[in-house]
Amino acid sequence: DPSLKVFTLNSNKDLAHEISEHIGVPLGKSSVTRFSDGEVQINIEESIRGCDVYLIQSTSAPANEHIMELLIMIDAMKRASAKTINVVMPYYGYARQDRKARAREPITAKLVANLIETAGATRVLTLDLHATQIQGFFDIPVDQLMGVPILADYFQEKQLDDIVVVSPDHGGVVRARKMADRLKAPIAIIDKRRPKPNVAEVMNIVGNIEGKTAIIIDDIIDTAGTITLAANALVEHGAKEVYACCTHPVLSGPAMERIDNSKIKELVVTNTIPLDEDKKIEKVTPLSVAALMGEAIIRVHEHASVSKLFD
Amino acid sequence: DPSLKVFTLNSNKDLAHEISEHIGVPLGKSSVTRFSDGEVQINIEESIRGCDVYLIQSTSAPANEHIMELLIMIDAMKRASAKTINVVMPYYGYARQDRKARAREPITAKLVANLIETAGATRVLTLDLHATQIQGFFDIPVDQLMGVPILADYFQEKQLDDIVVVSPDHGGVVRARKMADRLKAPIAIIDKRRPKPNVAEVMNIVGNIEGKTAIIIDDIIDTAGTITLAANALVEHGAKEVYACCTHPVLSGPAMERIDNSKIKELVVTNTIPLDEDKKIEKVTPLSVAALMGEAIIRVHEHASVSKLFD
Ligand SMILES: Nc1ncnc2c1ncn2[C@@H]1O[C@H](COP(=O)(O)O)[C@@H](O)[C@H]1O
Ligand SMILES: Nc1ncnc2c1ncn2[C@@H]1O[C@H](COP(=O)(O)O)[C@@H](O)[C@H]1O
Repeated sequence: DPSLKVFTLNSNKDLAHEISEHIGVPLGKSSVTRFSDGEVQINIEESIRGCDVYLIQSTSAPANEHIMELLIMIDAMKRASAKTINVVMPYYGYARQDRKARAREPITAKLVANLIETAGATRVLTLDLHATQIQGFFDIPVDQLMGVPILADYFQEKQLDDIVVVSPDHGGVVRARKMADRLKAPIAIIDKRRPKPNVAEVMNIVGNIEGKTAIIIDDIIDTAGTITLAANALVEHGAKEVYACCTHPVLSGPAMERIDNSKIKELVVTNTIPLDEDKKIEKVTPLSVAALMGEAIIRVHEHASVSKLFD
Repeated sequence: DPSLKVFTLNSNKDLAHEISEHIGVPLGKSSVTRFSDGEVQINIEESIRGCDVYLIQSTSAPANEHIMELLIMIDAMKRASAKTINVVMPYYGYARQDRKARAREPITAKLVANLIETAGATRVLTLDLHATQIQGFFDIPVDQLMGVPILADYFQEKQLDDIVVVSPDHGGVVRARKMADRLKAPIAIIDKRRPKPNVAEVMNIVGNIEGKTAIIIDDIIDTAGTITLAANALVEHGAKEVYACCTHPVLSGPAMERIDNSKIKELVVTNTIPLDEDKKIEKVTPLSVAALMGEAIIRVHEHASVSKLFD
């Protein structure tokens, strides 16, 4: 179908190449470089007039650079008369700034949604938004895919005995429940409590983990404080061994050191964010979302429902 | 007037402090820092409810970072119920991407205008836009100040004899004419021509420069190729000495080396973009736009016309 074109920006070219191979559509010819002063220079080297364009970019770190690249490319595609501009964002940056937690805070997740629409996008395809409400920040269609099946299938194949799926906080219980259902396992929840002000938090565990193989699941692992404390608490409370997994490996600041020094046996992630060289260690297993995202592109292009990909 | 508040972001804090001192309004308490993963974190540490806020930020390099800081702060101010949000941009980045020079190019100057409006700005105050048409990219009021008087006054005080003001290209003639009028001097124009394809450009000079003190004026000096070639051509054609000046010292890549090795005696710039340490050399004289911008803020706040500041 010559009207389907796939382009990539700079944040996640490996994943873009994998998606392109999976669906058998070569990547469109374009480049994003910089002028001498650092301003973004865009070249789209083939006609896209009347085409349905799929533009792949995670707004992972450096988030501001990747967002501006995305907006400028959308602007160029709109002015080059693309029929539809479908933004494929495996990782949606700024998703944690999704509400005013304190006075006079921005809601950057909503701002970014407005910017993407203003630039001219007609649809967004993404994976595991930190808060599902972010879909409602857009007035254009948003398809949200789920990473849980990919993570669950990996653990299924490992044939671990006596699994318990653990949510590191109350916000993650729905996700843990979905994983547990696929693995036919029970769940447990880490229940952090501060008994008195200025006293250290206590890690309470709701559910039975003794002698079991625990799999902690989260959407984002950033500095890895939550997940490594949870892992250590699980071992202290009698878990046999602890695995951890997440969709989006942000892994900033002290993350790698903490993971290295923790009781986590293996950390399973996806490639929505590429791993820097220093993160490609034995403990970290990356899985690919290329097939999932590629199928979604095909379905969107066939005007079929993406929701069938949801479970 | 307690309803007038001035805030600064990170691009040009020295200029912001000068403006604040000039108009006698202390800078509002706020900070722009980064989360561990590099995402922008904003804190506005005082109420701005019902206030007229003036937010100072040049979108100089790193342009993408400075644009995102600006947009996120505007979002926070809007949600904190500011009455008006007046963006003070001494330098407007991406101004050179103001039209499609080739097929499938973005028009980033227009995109940035749309982004600033979408975020919630109600007015823009800026200085020497690369193309005046950029005012029309906005649907909110844009006040444009002019740097020529500041540059001209400096040369006036130097009491140079037998001046000629030189435009480095045909696009800059109006600017050179304004400068020449203030200095009661004639103008000359560098007329680059390529006699045949694949033959080096010839620097023709239209106007009489022999034995004169030439002052080349441009709006932006970026890699300094144009201006240093022009200076050397002027000396070859008999100019006694050559000064250069501009409003916006972008000075990227080979700029400083070229200026150092050129026939330019002194380069006069303004502080719309702060000079990095390596650019603070004897040949470069920075002038301040703080009084000009401060006056404009006062006039806008008094609902007076800014256009009186224009000549
Ligand atoms: N990039 C970031 N890194 C760390 N914390 C963030 C980031 N962005 C937003 N936040 C904060 O994270 C909190 C929301 O996280 P959560 O409770 O997990 O949804 C809010 O207090 C935000 O201010
Ligand atoms: N940051 C930049 N550095 C150098 N050239 C640029 C930059 N932004 C845009 N341009 C190019 O500069 C040309 C316009 O410059 P001008 O003719 O001086 O208005 C266009 O061809 C643009 O593609």
